[in-house]
Amino acid sequence: MAERRLKHWGWGYEDQAPSRKELGEAAAGIGERLGFGGEVEEAVPLEAVEVRAPRLKVPAAFGDLFTDEKYDRVSRALGKAYRDVVRGFRGEFENPPDLVALPREESEIETVLSWCESEGAAVIPFGGGTSVVGGVEGRLGERPFVALDLRRLDRVLEVDAESLAARIQAGATGPGLEDQLREHGLTLRHFPQSFEYATLGGWIATRAGGHFATLYTHIDDLVESVRAITPRGTWESRRLPGSGAGPSPDRALIGSEGILGAIAEAWVRIRPRPEFKASCGVEFDDFLAAARAVRAISQSGLHPSNCRLLDALEAEMTGAGSGEKSLLVLGFESPHHPVDAPMELALEIARDHGGIHHPPTGRRRPNGGRTRPVDREEGAVGAWRNAFLFAPYLRDTFVACGVLSETFETAITWDRFEQFHAETMAAVRAKVAEVCDAPAEGRGAPRVSSHVYPDGPAPYFTVMAPAVRGGEVEQWDEIKAAASEAAIEGGGTITHHHAVGRDHRPWYDRQRPAPFAAALRAAKKELDPAGMLNPGVLIDP
Amino acid sequence: MAERRLKHWGWGYEDQAPSRKELGEAAAGIGERLGFGGEVEEAVPLEAVEVRAPRLKVPAAFGDLFTDEKYDRVSRALGKAYRDVVRGFRGEFENPPDLVALPREESEIETVLSWCESEGAAVIPFGGGTSVVGGVEGRLGERPFVALDLRRLDRVLEVDAESLAARIQAGATGPGLEDQLREHGLTLRHFPQSFEYATLGGWIATRAGGHFATLYTHIDDLVESVRAITPRGTWESRRLPGSGAGPSPDRALIGSEGILGAIAEAWVRIRPRPEFKASCGVEFDDFLAAARAVRAISQSGLHPSNCRLLDALEAEMTGAGSGEKSLLVLGFESPHHPVDAPMELALEIARDHGGIHHPPTGRRRPNGGRTRPVDREEGAVGAWRNAFLFAPYLRDTFVACGVLSETFETAITWDRFEQFHAETMAAVRAKVAEVCDAPAEGRGAPRVSSHVYPDGPAPYFTVMAPAVRGGEVEQWDEIKAAASEAAIEGGGTITHHHAVGRDHRPWYDRQRPAPFAAALRAAKKELDPAGMLNPGVLIDP
Repeated sequence: MAERRLKHWGWGYEDQAPSRKELGEAAAGIGERLGFGGEVEEAVPLEAVEVRAPRLKVPAAFGDLFTDEKYDRVSRALGKAYRDVVRGFRGEFENPPDLVALPREESEIETVLSWCESEGAAVIPFGGGTSVVGGVEGRLGERPFVALDLRRLDRVLEVDAESLAARIQAGATGPGLEDQLREHGLTLRHFPQSFEYATLGGWIATRAGGHFATLYTHIDDLVESVRAITPRGTWESRRLPGSGAGPSPDRALIGSEGILGAIAEAWVRIRPRPEFKASCGVEFDDFLAAARAVRAISQSGLHPSNCRLLDALEAEMTGAGSGEKSLLVLGFESPHHPVDAPMELALEIARDHGGIHHPPTGRRRPNGGRTRPVDREEGAVGAWRNAFLFAPYLRDTFVACGVLSETFETAITWDRFEQFHAETMAAVRAKVAEVCDAPAEGRGAPRVSSHVYPDGPAPYFTVMAPAVRGGEVEQWDEIKAAASEAAIEGGGTITHHHAVGRDHRPWYDRQRPAPFAAALRAAKKELDPAGMLNPGVLIDP
Repeated sequence: MAERRLKHWGWGYEDQAPSRKELGEAAAGIGERLGFGGEVEEAVPLEAVEVRAPRLKVPAAFGDLFTDEKYDRVSRALGKAYRDVVRGFRGEFENPPDLVALPREESEIETVLSWCESEGAAVIPFGGGTSVVGGVEGRLGERPFVALDLRRLDRVLEVDAESLAARIQAGATGPGLEDQLREHGLTLRHFPQSFEYATLGGWIATRAGGHFATLYTHIDDLVESVRAITPRGTWESRRLPGSGAGPSPDRALIGSEGILGAIAEAWVRIRPRPEFKASCGVEFDDFLAAARAVRAISQSGLHPSNCRLLDALEAEMTGAGSGEKSLLVLGFESPHHPVDAPMELALEIARDHGGIHHPPTGRRRPNGGRTRPVDREEGAVGAWRNAFLFAPYLRDTFVACGVLSETFETAITWDRFEQFHAETMAAVRAKVAEVCDAPAEGRGAPRVSSHVYPDGPAPYFTVMAPAVRGGEVEQWDEIKAAASEAAIEGGGTITHHHAVGRDHRPWYDRQRPAPFAAALRAAKKELDPAGMLNPGVLIDP
């Protein structure tokens, strides 16, 4: 059987690409629904893509560890941001890796690092390639580079059912590791939007945000120990439930985006598959009243597994509402006990803030049952969830028919949220109106949903607007710059879970403490004196 | 009113020191209870302490910022480990700071750092001085040093009741900051054993473990942002509920033990005072069965605020048991909803593992009521709690009457716990039997209690034995070395919440990943090129 190949641009596998006819039908539907979007254009096929000749020669000594095949290079040249999908669609792969390395075992990671160091080449660690911040795009000028793709290191190596932890290789994808854990009745339950393709190593390197809206929001909290290969040796922490021995070595690697070493594997905390669940959608007339309900719930100590607030427009777009009301998606789950009682307490808070809801959907399913995120859920909650996971697929179609569709996200404490939200929305709306043929409010305007902490929310904004064909990248970059400026000026973070990469650098540089940047630069120089690991990400030499 | 002064050795204030008569009575009671302990000896009074002349001259330019008073220097010369208390008791203050600096504002911290850098002096940031790992003891040979005592920076500067966070100066003690938060009906609820004297800055610098046995065990999880003064500028992170922008700058400072900078203030997460509480003691015949109950509870997602298991000997020593049964101390609390239901679920698990208990003590008290840890609680749970907080006071008396009394702690995943616990106990018992005139089991033998995580417990061991008078330090150091060796060899951490300091260094050096040590050393060199900040702690230059 031929290996199923990922598309060389955009989201998903080659066999998932819609036909010309399907695209035409989709474009018509999109136009009707959004009020914008035009004729379907066709993506440049791989055969027609022109790509720079590799500046490195595949070394003969290492068998098939390295490859310079066109498909392999092109499909690792870009991440999955809107600006990446647009460029891939148009066949613009300006910075393909010169070689791709596909190690089968950890020692081969060391081989790649030492060979590249001797060649003066850079190395970009590559997981699922789902970066939306230019994290895997080698904008390195004349310096040749290798994409170090870890997908062959995809095994769950050990499961400790007693401690509820597993040792998993960095290249395991969401479905890949969940399939292996399912045999043990266990699950990581880390479900970012990139779940299907992204890898554990990528999640750790980028501090990915997952399924849980409270408590275990970031992969950070699920990591028990990390093993990384640096140019100066193996960095492996002890496997411990907790420690107070100096600054956490794991926290130094978590979010390091490949600049200190290539993550080879990690022990992560897993859990029994949830047996008890309850979910409920709560509607609010007023978005800010709904946000206050979210604050009260997040500060109650009830720890919902899902607590996402969709504004009216976002709710409508995901098919979860009529466009009149904000929708709070609430969920509780447990492998151990019924969750009706905490759900009822949370709904009581929601009602106190003006929320209206149907009775929650509660259910108990036998442990071991399939609880993949692609399972269908009913009603408004299910509509949101399906839209969440389908969105990246749909975006390829949006690009084809001239619809701009992208997201950005941040976080802020509650005391500043209302003003921050208003100002960020205003800044982005104004820029959208300026650079798009679209109204400032309603259709085409930004929408918002979020993760949530006791001390503040992590609002997630979506922009949909008519694209300027051929100028999509510049168009979005202007909107994104306005959004980033508003987030940083307003006291937020440049990213809650999308990482920094290269695209967020100007604003990240303003966010981080200067002495921390100096410390990180010194640490990198110590471990990577050649400055070969993912140069330009997070810091400059 | 004269300022109330802390004792120049041992625990607490000068006016809390027992009289000669009280000491005699206590010694008799201790001897009766423990079966060992001898005549009361007297501590060397401050007047009789001989102390090295200061090697630095108080600079005239900075008013009363610096002092070379004997009391000030002696009382900052040692931490509060058993080996410190013994030496203080005997008047042995080998390494007093040459000067003590007591800044009243942040700019004076900068003054101290720059003056010390110009003088070639070292600086040891000093909070409550409750280190039990040699973290504040300047074993620096010929190099003069200044104790940078932050106690005058003790204010809660801002309270954000909406986000539930407060900006607090580093020198605020537990009672000091709780008193200020109480005016707002809020609390940090971080209650380590050092609560009465230790400071927020010290907790952050050492990754202190607090009141909560699950979820928010370390101060790490309560920190929203940190502001530290480094020799190369101010390191201040943004105040954010969550962020994915690079490795966490806060996590790099948390646990840095003063080697990167002096923590000046932090935003920390606070909460409404708990209104609903339930607590219960559960007895088990078998310690390991009890440990399995703890594992099941910690993996249930019920998140008890207290879930401490005392072995039979520990339970007896704290007056919470007869010495026949292990005691599980279970507590739930919430500012928002009754906690009887989760308590009942946890007790059901405990019963499934053979636990026997009386009905839990539930209560609701008006928010704003006093919930200081010194409140009396009834029954076995209250006995444990009172003993926990009284222990450091009692130790001064133990030292006076020749009783060795000290603790050590670690953490390990559940899969290795039973063997690890057995081997650590065996190693320590053997060493206690070798260096103490005491039996290997029963009275005098080590005892254990713990924090607990879903993936493993943090066992806390106590050793009580007859002291070798005049040789206490060497005696304990031998036991501690055996314990540390067992912890590190067995795969545990050298410390769960006591920090590394100077005393844990040999084992910490084996625990931490070598590349991380190299990175930390490089980072320190960048920020502190003179190597003046707490030299010898965590790393060598």
